[in-house]
Amino acid sequence: MINKLYFTTTNEEAQKNAFDAIEEEQSSIGYYDLPEQNISSILDYCDTISLTVEAIAVIGIGGSSLGAKAVYEFIKPVKDLPRKLYFFESTDPINITNLLSKLDIKKTHFLVISKSGNTVETFSIYKYIYSLHNDPFAYTFITDPGSPLEQYAKEVNISVLHLPENVGGRFSVLSTVGLVPLALCGIDIQSLLSGAKTIKESFFEHGYIQDTLLKKATYYAKNHAQYHINCIFAYSETLKYFCEWYVQLWGESLGKLQRHSAFHVGLTPVGLIGPKDQHSFLQLIMEGTRDKSVTFIKIEDFHDSIRIPDISLAHLESLDILNNKTFSQLINMQCDSVIEALLEQESIPLDTISIPSISEYDIGSLIYYYELLTSLVGELIDVNTYNQPGVEAGKIILKKKLQGI
Amino acid sequence: MINKLYFTTTNEEAQKNAFDAIEEEQSSIGYYDLPEQNISSILDYCDTISLTVEAIAVIGIGGSSLGAKAVYEFIKPVKDLPRKLYFFESTDPINITNLLSKLDIKKTHFLVISKSGNTVETFSIYKYIYSLHNDPFAYTFITDPGSPLEQYAKEVNISVLHLPENVGGRFSVLSTVGLVPLALCGIDIQSLLSGAKTIKESFFEHGYIQDTLLKKATYYAKNHAQYHINCIFAYSETLKYFCEWYVQLWGESLGKLQRHSAFHVGLTPVGLIGPKDQHSFLQLIMEGTRDKSVTFIKIEDFHDSIRIPDISLAHLESLDILNNKTFSQLINMQCDSVIEALLEQESIPLDTISIPSISEYDIGSLIYYYELLTSLVGELIDVNTYNQPGVEAGKIILKKKLQGI
Repeated sequence: MINKLYFTTTNEEAQKNAFDAIEEEQSSIGYYDLPEQNISSILDYCDTISLTVEAIAVIGIGGSSLGAKAVYEFIKPVKDLPRKLYFFESTDPINITNLLSKLDIKKTHFLVISKSGNTVETFSIYKYIYSLHNDPFAYTFITDPGSPLEQYAKEVNISVLHLPENVGGRFSVLSTVGLVPLALCGIDIQSLLSGAKTIKESFFEHGYIQDTLLKKATYYAKNHAQYHINCIFAYSETLKYFCEWYVQLWGESLGKLQRHSAFHVGLTPVGLIGPKDQHSFLQLIMEGTRDKSVTFIKIEDFHDSIRIPDISLAHLESLDILNNKTFSQLINMQCDSVIEALLEQESIPLDTISIPSISEYDIGSLIYYYELLTSLVGELIDVNTYNQPGVEAGKIILKKKLQGI
Repeated sequence: MINKLYFTTTNEEAQKNAFDAIEEEQSSIGYYDLPEQNISSILDYCDTISLTVEAIAVIGIGGSSLGAKAVYEFIKPVKDLPRKLYFFESTDPINITNLLSKLDIKKTHFLVISKSGNTVETFSIYKYIYSLHNDPFAYTFITDPGSPLEQYAKEVNISVLHLPENVGGRFSVLSTVGLVPLALCGIDIQSLLSGAKTIKESFFEHGYIQDTLLKKATYYAKNHAQYHINCIFAYSETLKYFCEWYVQLWGESLGKLQRHSAFHVGLTPVGLIGPKDQHSFLQLIMEGTRDKSVTFIKIEDFHDSIRIPDISLAHLESLDILNNKTFSQLINMQCDSVIEALLEQESIPLDTISIPSISEYDIGSLIYYYELLTSLVGELIDVNTYNQPGVEAGKIILKKKLQGI
């Protein structure tokens, strides 16, 4: 991964403090250690799932689905995977019925993922699917040790896997939560972790990414009152669900009351896909209010050689300049052109991330990069990055409604 | 449609001026008249497409694809459609290859949609697909009269349909651009227009939506410096692509330099889907910076009777309150709970839109509602709602790169 910043910041004191805080945080926040974990028990478990199982279905929402979905949808178009992966992540009845029509329920293994073990959406769907197919061998639960879900599992003889300690949902993609569904579908989870590990080492062992991440986080934090919308502009359809994962990670981690004040703060994430969103959101970036930073993500080589043919169309000869270009060249030229156009504007903080290709290693590195960035910015804007107290009120009201109170 | 505002505004002078401006604008901006158009020529044209055609593929980007996609993805899950609809809207080679693998090119009719008639993405893809399948009867072009695309069409005997006059890409879903692909797939386009017409009449003929739209637009405009992020929180997966259409409409129309100043202004659109995004973006709305308005969109009746079964799970008895509820009830209770939770917060302007069901009529009304709202807000924040000068710079740079300059 190459990350190039087109803005500068000089606040070395803040950078040092943030680095120290993150280094210290490693002992209490679980996600930092995930790249080094031993995955043999996960692989062993995956081997116990029958080869007759053709599809894996995650029943989970938010942090229980977005990470695996991001990786799966990135890799799926370029790799011949042995099993399909589905996500039941909504109580929308149309969505549930539609998903069920796509899979053969008797050849599907369901992963019920709930950290707390009592998520309303997850259990509504689980109950419904269980009523259609009540074979305990068709299910595996992933939850925190001792959760109500684990206790239930013991009663009905369903296998349980645990989340590691102190790993929050939105930081859990590199734990059992993401690794189990991905491994079951033939994703190389060791490469995924290796990609993450490279970024981790580069950050903590004074590699090049340390300086870049500290500068970027400090810039975002220092200027958060002005640049409080942070766009990812990713030039590949394969990164669409990575953007959704980023939106949760960024929004839920950084939208908070400050720890030492009564101020509401927050950085708003926006995920964009190029070139499509050149015809949508770009106008707003170029000419709209100067409240947005933009990070372009490029894939250097799509390893796909389809090419615009050498055809000249009458009256459309001006488009002959496209001829013989590969689409890979074209999409990256489009990205570079938009970057150049934005650099000519004032007051749009911009950086670029290049990854070499569409691989597990590369998405692993992107994931860990964004997790570190989130932790750093959270520290610097003085919020608790790892909780989400704001979502409780709605849950309490829902419970009352369900009870008819 | 029922639209309820939970905020008030008293600026009647601004409301009157905005209404007058929109009324006057009808003579020069083409989209206003679309609900009353005669669709018989479109339906006649559709009848000329062979019944052996199994799929329709739109080659188009931005305004040429987002509208049809929004309607198609809304209706598809609830209606047995005779043909599938695909969208080639990216130069991403993986995406192109992947889409082509899903369809039988010889049983597909391609609609090449480009208002200007020389869109880089559209013609790169068209050239590629044409090189694989050069049968002129497999293509229809939709473009402005006299465009280079129309001239080319005459040379190669490909049929051409026109966009109506003065209809911009992002306001074109109810014109040939959206209606032709939708009608070819069995969508009831007359109902779509009827839904739009109901909103149009209610607005221009002093129906209830006039007051609501004027109040909402005036509030957004007056407070745009503070509430410059406008979220749609739609409680159905079927509205996912409607949100993408909204993002283009809102962002590209309102992100501008003001007409009478050198100020950059803009309202940033965010599309959210519930309940999924309760586990993602909601925390940021609840506790983050007070810079967001939220519009909830609810579907009153999903016409789907799947129900959470009356099963009690040991150790999870607290979830028995879900039993016997339909998913339709549950998802709407979730929506109501989040609305109530947000209403308990200060400084989060909120409104709700309810549509009765998932139908062409309902999405037609939503579309026209948002088009009118966009026009009103654009007028009130003093921008040219209908151009997009900010996207030109990147195109010029791309052209130079392609020429090797």
